[in-house]
Amino acid sequence: MGDELLAGFTVDTNGAWMGRRAARLGLPVRARFVVGDSARDIRGALARALEVAEVVLVTGGLGPTGDDITREVVAEALRRPLRLDEALLEDLRTRWATWRGTPLPAGNERMCRVPEGALVLPNRVGTAPGLVLDVERRMVVLLPGVPAEMRGLFDEGVAPLLRERLGDRLLALVHRVFHTTGIAESSLAERIDAGLPEDVGPVSIAFLPRLTGVDVRLSARATPADPRAARGLDRVEALVEPILRRYRYPAESGDIVECIAAEMTSSGRTLAVAESCTGGLVSRRITELAGSSEYFLGGMVTYADEAKRAHLGISGELLARNGAVSEEVARAMAEGVARAFGADAGLAVTGVAGPGGGSAEKPVGTVWYAVHLDGRTRARRSIFPGARGAVRERSAQAVLALLYRKLRGR
Amino acid sequence: MGDELLAGFTVDTNGAWMGRRAARLGLPVRARFVVGDSARDIRGALARALEVAEVVLVTGGLGPTGDDITREVVAEALRRPLRLDEALLEDLRTRWATWRGTPLPAGNERMCRVPEGALVLPNRVGTAPGLVLDVERRMVVLLPGVPAEMRGLFDEGVAPLLRERLGDRLLALVHRVFHTTGIAESSLAERIDAGLPEDVGPVSIAFLPRLTGVDVRLSARATPADPRAARGLDRVEALVEPILRRYRYPAESGDIVECIAAEMTSSGRTLAVAESCTGGLVSRRITELAGSSEYFLGGMVTYADEAKRAHLGISGELLARNGAVSEEVARAMAEGVARAFGADAGLAVTGVAGPGGGSAEKPVGTVWYAVHLDGRTRARRSIFPGARGAVRERSAQAVLALLYRKLRGR
Repeated sequence: MGDELLAGFTVDTNGAWMGRRAARLGLPVRARFVVGDSARDIRGALARALEVAEVVLVTGGLGPTGDDITREVVAEALRRPLRLDEALLEDLRTRWATWRGTPLPAGNERMCRVPEGALVLPNRVGTAPGLVLDVERRMVVLLPGVPAEMRGLFDEGVAPLLRERLGDRLLALVHRVFHTTGIAESSLAERIDAGLPEDVGPVSIAFLPRLTGVDVRLSARATPADPRAARGLDRVEALVEPILRRYRYPAESGDIVECIAAEMTSSGRTLAVAESCTGGLVSRRITELAGSSEYFLGGMVTYADEAKRAHLGISGELLARNGAVSEEVARAMAEGVARAFGADAGLAVTGVAGPGGGSAEKPVGTVWYAVHLDGRTRARRSIFPGARGAVRERSAQAVLALLYRKLRGR
Repeated sequence: MGDELLAGFTVDTNGAWMGRRAARLGLPVRARFVVGDSARDIRGALARALEVAEVVLVTGGLGPTGDDITREVVAEALRRPLRLDEALLEDLRTRWATWRGTPLPAGNERMCRVPEGALVLPNRVGTAPGLVLDVERRMVVLLPGVPAEMRGLFDEGVAPLLRERLGDRLLALVHRVFHTTGIAESSLAERIDAGLPEDVGPVSIAFLPRLTGVDVRLSARATPADPRAARGLDRVEALVEPILRRYRYPAESGDIVECIAAEMTSSGRTLAVAESCTGGLVSRRITELAGSSEYFLGGMVTYADEAKRAHLGISGELLARNGAVSEEVARAMAEGVARAFGADAGLAVTGVAGPGGGSAEKPVGTVWYAVHLDGRTRARRSIFPGARGAVRERSAQAVLALLYRKLRGR
């Protein structure tokens, strides 16, 4: 609930958080309704939610200001008169005095009004308590919109209550995520479809594309005591693993730099980076992770040709003969930057990020990238789709992925 | 549309983005429905949206995989048979061959099926086109869920169409945004409150803090023909301008690099960048804008001390005496990188981004940055709050802001 969600001043992170928590409990979210601070729209959303679900979680609009009307509108819609809870008010007065050293402002008393028959969930982080209402074997839970308060109340109050009431019917979602890079969503889907039998039991497969790759997610639902979900997942994982192997990287964070850092650090090797069209993006991604100084010695952004000559030792003749965006220059950059920093490995990217600079032979999106590792240099060319920012992101990911594959000996 | 939104694997940033864009057009969002990849739920959400709004924007589920069913479900619900658009398919085949060098996978053909009577919005960033359907004086717009694709289609296809069709009824929000950097939100608000009269007519003022600065937004609602909004905004702008002047940068995009590029290019000066704790972020920000090669010669990420010695000519003695995070080293880096690249201007950042590396004397967040310009070097120190990523963002912005102020002679 909240105008600020519809107007986009606030991104609805509460919805995603509750979705994850509910899925983990085994109570998947069926639908989410986002409406503004209007009595009519709040009533409408409540009615629709009660049509499609047994449990309705409502967040936002429990605060002290004039646009906070959720408590009043829901109480009226469900015909539960509000009564002031004196014990709650006394407790809030005491806590306010401790926190702020001032008397409780009058607008806050409203937060201690409780719909008839509601269960009160104490809010230890903020002021408005959570409220649980039973509605003909369904449940409506009102929670504040402030993320820290909502989360505390969910974990301490709502989740135990749901487990207690629905425990034997909860089907927890078990899932496994595989991060891949270097293969298109549709190609991956085609290969996986071809590699799996018609019937994969209780397992469902989802493909989640990002600019930097595609995540493959296997999921299954089961009660905690039922071993079929885990068995089904094991079986499907064994079938997809050989298909994914070449493209997969096992990063907790989803960032391939995490895997590169682990490989580089454990093998004691060092890295340097030369960038042209990515202009610092590869170095920035590497240094985003704390601890990168253990293996990352530094980088050069050689945007001008003169910089490629002066700092990477690339001859003017090589540049003139092949052009800056070429296999030869990418190789020379990777080798040159490793030499300049005395590093074991060197990365290089040179390309046409656009919007200008393209030609018939080298259209916008043409990128050469190279990895120099253990005395050997490999170069690859791609023609990436999308605008300047997308070409740069994809280029950075491509050179990082090539390094990771070579570190893994693939 | 999408299971991943309900399960919370994806935070719904599209909803917020479209809310902001629609509000700007003068078409505030009435409600948002989030449902999974289920035909029944997609039909239900479409029906409910058509009950409460004239324009329904649908994102997600237009891709090539089996769980992408939005196009088919919406076409069936609105009774518009799907027909393969041969021209679209031919175009997609050509683009795919250029990008990937492989034939179009079979699953992608589905994306070229168009509901009868629909207007097709070409997707320049990805594969699935946008589709516009007229439904009894209401409008249903289908857009892909990939944010870059949705945004491109909205700005290039949907917004012009809405302006054309609803123009005279749009009560547009007229606003003026002033980007500032280098002053805290609360200080700015205090000064502006003190400088304005009680009554500012139809104008409202909002402060929008970001990691890189604070935007001040003046707004008023009016039809395009009504002059009162513009007059009120003129009056308030004249009052706040002297307060903002020192901190303001007039970048359309909100990125101070845009202003730096204009100053550098018009004066024919060149720039080089030396980075330690920002690890490539400053160079990346500069090169994010097309045309940066006109003035940006290159950068060095001198993460290791050895790199600072070898590539920036900083003596081991200077490093040992002052430490890498010091005024002396920041100055020497800015001067050294300008010299190394033969540039008119040099920027440098050296600091403790954390989480490790802090000390009592130089706590995490301590950053020295320097600008060398026209033969003179200025250095500044800040202690930035926040985690590693925030410290890096704030550091990059600080050195760019210092350069801009010096280019403007402030």
